[in-house]
Amino acid sequence: MELIEEGSITSVVGFKAAGITAGLKKSGKKDLALLVSDTPALSYVMVTQNRFRAAPVILCETYQAQSPFKRALVINSGNANAGTGEEGMKNAITMAEKTAALIGVDKNEVFVASTGVIGEQLPIEKIEKGLATIIPRLSATGGVEAAEAIRTTDTFTKSCAVTITIEGVPVTIGGMAKGSGMIHPNMATMIGAVTTDVNITPEILEELFKASILYSYNMISVDGDTSTNDAAFLFCNQRAEHSLIDSKTHPGYQSFKEALDYVQQTLAKMIAKDGEGATKMIEATIEGAKNSEDARAAAKAIITSSLVKTAIFGEDGNWGRILSSVGNSSAEFSPENVKAWISSSKGSVQIVEKGRGILEDEVLLANILKANTIIIRLHLGEGDSRATAWGCDLSYDYVRINAEYRT
Amino acid sequence: MELIEEGSITSVVGFKAAGITAGLKKSGKKDLALLVSDTPALSYVMVTQNRFRAAPVILCETYQAQSPFKRALVINSGNANAGTGEEGMKNAITMAEKTAALIGVDKNEVFVASTGVIGEQLPIEKIEKGLATIIPRLSATGGVEAAEAIRTTDTFTKSCAVTITIEGVPVTIGGMAKGSGMIHPNMATMIGAVTTDVNITPEILEELFKASILYSYNMISVDGDTSTNDAAFLFCNQRAEHSLIDSKTHPGYQSFKEALDYVQQTLAKMIAKDGEGATKMIEATIEGAKNSEDARAAAKAIITSSLVKTAIFGEDGNWGRILSSVGNSSAEFSPENVKAWISSSKGSVQIVEKGRGILEDEVLLANILKANTIIIRLHLGEGDSRATAWGCDLSYDYVRINAEYRT
Repeated sequence: MELIEEGSITSVVGFKAAGITAGLKKSGKKDLALLVSDTPALSYVMVTQNRFRAAPVILCETYQAQSPFKRALVINSGNANAGTGEEGMKNAITMAEKTAALIGVDKNEVFVASTGVIGEQLPIEKIEKGLATIIPRLSATGGVEAAEAIRTTDTFTKSCAVTITIEGVPVTIGGMAKGSGMIHPNMATMIGAVTTDVNITPEILEELFKASILYSYNMISVDGDTSTNDAAFLFCNQRAEHSLIDSKTHPGYQSFKEALDYVQQTLAKMIAKDGEGATKMIEATIEGAKNSEDARAAAKAIITSSLVKTAIFGEDGNWGRILSSVGNSSAEFSPENVKAWISSSKGSVQIVEKGRGILEDEVLLANILKANTIIIRLHLGEGDSRATAWGCDLSYDYVRINAEYRT
Repeated sequence: MELIEEGSITSVVGFKAAGITAGLKKSGKKDLALLVSDTPALSYVMVTQNRFRAAPVILCETYQAQSPFKRALVINSGNANAGTGEEGMKNAITMAEKTAALIGVDKNEVFVASTGVIGEQLPIEKIEKGLATIIPRLSATGGVEAAEAIRTTDTFTKSCAVTITIEGVPVTIGGMAKGSGMIHPNMATMIGAVTTDVNITPEILEELFKASILYSYNMISVDGDTSTNDAAFLFCNQRAEHSLIDSKTHPGYQSFKEALDYVQQTLAKMIAKDGEGATKMIEATIEGAKNSEDARAAAKAIITSSLVKTAIFGEDGNWGRILSSVGNSSAEFSPENVKAWISSSKGSVQIVEKGRGILEDEVLLANILKANTIIIRLHLGEGDSRATAWGCDLSYDYVRINAEYRT
């Protein structure tokens, strides 16, 4: 697997994209993104489990049921089109219809996504004008620009791509995502999109896509709040000329799975790293869990705890809070079997043995906590399952950003 | 029901208490509290559901199983005696034994609680010395002093008492509690204690105590983290000379239930109000829920959301976050039936009708949010159940307090 420099969703041959300013953001920054596949692409979307689902999220599910192939994904930032009732749904449909008309396909071949403030109606006329502008800009190098246009409070653009070889044929996977607040994905992230040209059956592609989300977007949290607009998209134009991946024993199955997981995890980690106000990234790994559900639950409990997050921000080795957070998860274990370590680029130290604090060198721990990425590892002593979750610290800036979000 | 001025756990005849400085806190503030009942009192304790339970919590459960009557409750602040292994359990037992010896009872007639930093061994010799000092200080007016001694990051002492009349006989209920961080009780709060002289059967008393916790301590959250040391205690010396409350139709049943609920809710609300770094209290009421579980889950989801909390801190009417938080709860409802209001001492405004934002007067909402207590009310349109939860905003000071907790 090779990482493509400045890779994006258009690193995959057959996809074009663009990102422009349509005028939804007061800042004048880019706020409209479009991804188009030259040919019908096998597509999936996984959406938020929040009961208050935004209009575009509901619409995507409807279109998904109508056809497994899609030609485009249109995304606006600056407005979530959530809590907007019938008018919101009408606007989401208009967004799909106008995009479809401009590229000459049916409306249900277009996926739609919105992200930004909840509860305000979409300025649909601005989006319509923007669509007329964005079409001529579509290009095979527009992926990074599109990733830029879906940002809200993100401080950097989240885009990547890798290439693998199956039967001597290059296969590419590109992706983009956005954060940075209301990040606690449940079945999908805020907005993420992946493109690929792998030649694969729809069933295996869907299975691998869902599995990759479970260990990528679903393993991050910035603030414990699941968004109304979460949606993760996949577009596969099946252009690569290797033999069809139609079983787990196909020589390309494992390498495609690994590459897809890598792209999704890379994007998820970028979101965690860029969490609102974050000064440090936190990586929590649970080993020795009874089963994978327990491992995921315990790892997520650590990166979700406000008390762990503030301690990491303060570079305070208050490891009792780590134990406490895992104790609050649904994972089953006996405290007296737990071991724990904290490490970073500056060193590593065991802090718990048999459920009891054993740290003697507070100075060593304090030094470890000065790094930008803090790695927490626990062994539950129950079985062989493991999982990793990614989050960030909780800083003054998180409070500032969210106290002033609409001002 | 009458509120007793400066009421406390010693407002109930037959209970003595005291609070002193034993030297566990670096600040030199009070850190050891003792409550003693002149006669054996029917007692219960409900403890944390955190799997990493502190030594005193485990010990209390053991003693509870050994005898339904207790004579004393000893509490230290400044150290949680959690994550301390066998040595921690030995110290908790010593704390019970020394207290029991000094007042001349068996060790299993003493409940023990600790609160403070997790993961450091209890300085047991300081507690032993403290116990010798605190015994002569015990008095029938020492309740407030005891409440003072159990504080950690609390900015004020949490104590109250009420009196009711059953068959012409005065019955008193007193209580104390502590906050202020790691507050997301699950079956009990950080530490709370209630005394009463009501004459009641053990079965009905236990039932009413458990029910009152469900709608008081279990309905508050400061930071979403359930403590390792949560414990709510009840002591009932059955001294009041009214006829025994032995059924729900007894004339004293309902008034005692209401008074007990009042005391527990008053203490719970004090904890929410005094949440670490809090500048505003948030009260969230769910009406029209399918059942009481849904009502409680939805109300707690609002006061637990970091995004709702930061918006309230910023006095920003970003009500979309309220809808989103309820949408993330386990409550079942149809978004299109939801109505919502925000109110305070400065006015009231409906913000959502049929799941859609209808706010037109942003200035009115901005003014409402300037108050110290913000009331959020949602009607789910599903049934007749309701519940209220209490929390606080998320401020810069919460981050500061928890980034610097051990320094």
